Amino acid sequence: MEKTIITISREFGSGGRLIGKRLAEKLGVPYYDKELLDRIAEESGFCREMMEDAEKKAKNSFLYSLMSAMGTGETGPESLSLNERFFLAQFDTLRKIAEEGSCVIVGRCADYILRGIPEATNVFIYAEEADKIKRAVDEYGVPQAEVKKMMKDTDKARANYYNYHTGRKWGDQVNYHLSIDSGYLEIEDIVDLIISYTEKKIKRMPSY
Amino acid sequence: MEKTIITISREFGSGGRLIGKRLAEKLGVPYYDKELLDRIAEESGFCREMMEDAEKKAKNSFLYSLMSAMGTGETGPESLSLNERFFLAQFDTLRKIAEEGSCVIVGRCADYILRGIPEATNVFIYAEEADKIKRAVDEYGVPQAEVKKMMKDTDKARANYYNYHTGRKWGDQVNYHLSIDSGYLEIEDIVDLIISYTEKKIKRMPSY
Repeated sequence: MEKTIITISREFGSGGRLIGKRLAEKLGVPYYDKELLDRIAEESGFCREMMEDAEKKAKNSFLYSLMSAMGTGETGPESLSLNERFFLAQFDTLRKIAEEGSCVIVGRCADYILRGIPEATNVFIYAEEADKIKRAVDEYGVPQAEVKKMMKDTDKARANYYNYHTGRKWGDQVNYHLSIDSGYLEIEDIVDLIISYTEKKIKRMPSY
Repeated sequence: MEKTIITISREFGSGGRLIGKRLAEKLGVPYYDKELLDRIAEESGFCREMMEDAEKKAKNSFLYSLMSAMGTGETGPESLSLNERFFLAQFDTLRKIAEEGSCVIVGRCADYILRGIPEATNVFIYAEEADKIKRAVDEYGVPQAEVKKMMKDTDKARANYYNYHTGRKWGDQVNYHLSIDSGYLEIEDIVDLIISYTEKKIKRMPSY
């Protein structure tokens, strides 16, 4: 198999993480999601819990922007805020992972960070609200009473975090090669469709 | 083959019409694009040229909204503006065509009009600007000096027309089952990918 890097961005409840996992299994390549935070922490020396916490705070876009914009008062790279430094560490680790070989990465602005790498295919997974609620309740075990709020908060944090650091709009299809409504296909069929897309894309790359 | 209806919405220069044509040929089903206007004209009695002209005027969103909102001063369906009546005629003809059997329809808010019909799959085709310019110049023969303006005006008219009549946002992926950047695959591969999607989708429909 030629080098294949697939990034998955996804709405909460769309099954995107599951699709990413199955993709990695089927292609026999490393899968990165929460695992990525461990590696970023290891390579950067930053505290994993603090990084995770910073992202969750992105739920409030104003506070996140404020926190992210506030440097240390010094000049030079040291004056960057913690959020900016976390993002730079993520950037470095993701680029390194992409150099190492084929992989599947879920979330973490990977589409943006790996943009311009010819082997990278960026996929966005979304679904209609009713489908996402059903999946979140039935498969993720989210209590019915909390699901709408959790869905809204999670996607808002993802969007704010992405928009702040990339200057682009999360979910805007211009950032992805392929966007799929997961509500109409089986997970396995979506996995096959994405593999089929990457194979067709690789075939057309000038170097092959 | 089970009944298969595919609607294609597309950015100017993305090759969406060509993809629609090849889809219809490959599936052996009727193809509707400009042909649709003839049939709407025939069934409604409206003048084809006037309908075509009204759509082009959507380039100016304010004027289009104004024209479309202005009724005849009467009450009842007769008070609808010409633009509204054109859209209703299009609505009726499209629903009739979808009832008749499998087909491929390019443009004409077909995704919105056929929403809720289980056999309909809505696809959006887009591409990066450089890829669209290249295609428009090389394949459609648009002069280089005019291509950017033509692209902008055409997509603006499509967006205004769609947004006005559907209350939704043209190009917003929530309106489509599948969105594909056409810049990375051969046309034939995109056609195969869409057929593969519809087959997987049909397989999962409760009635099959």
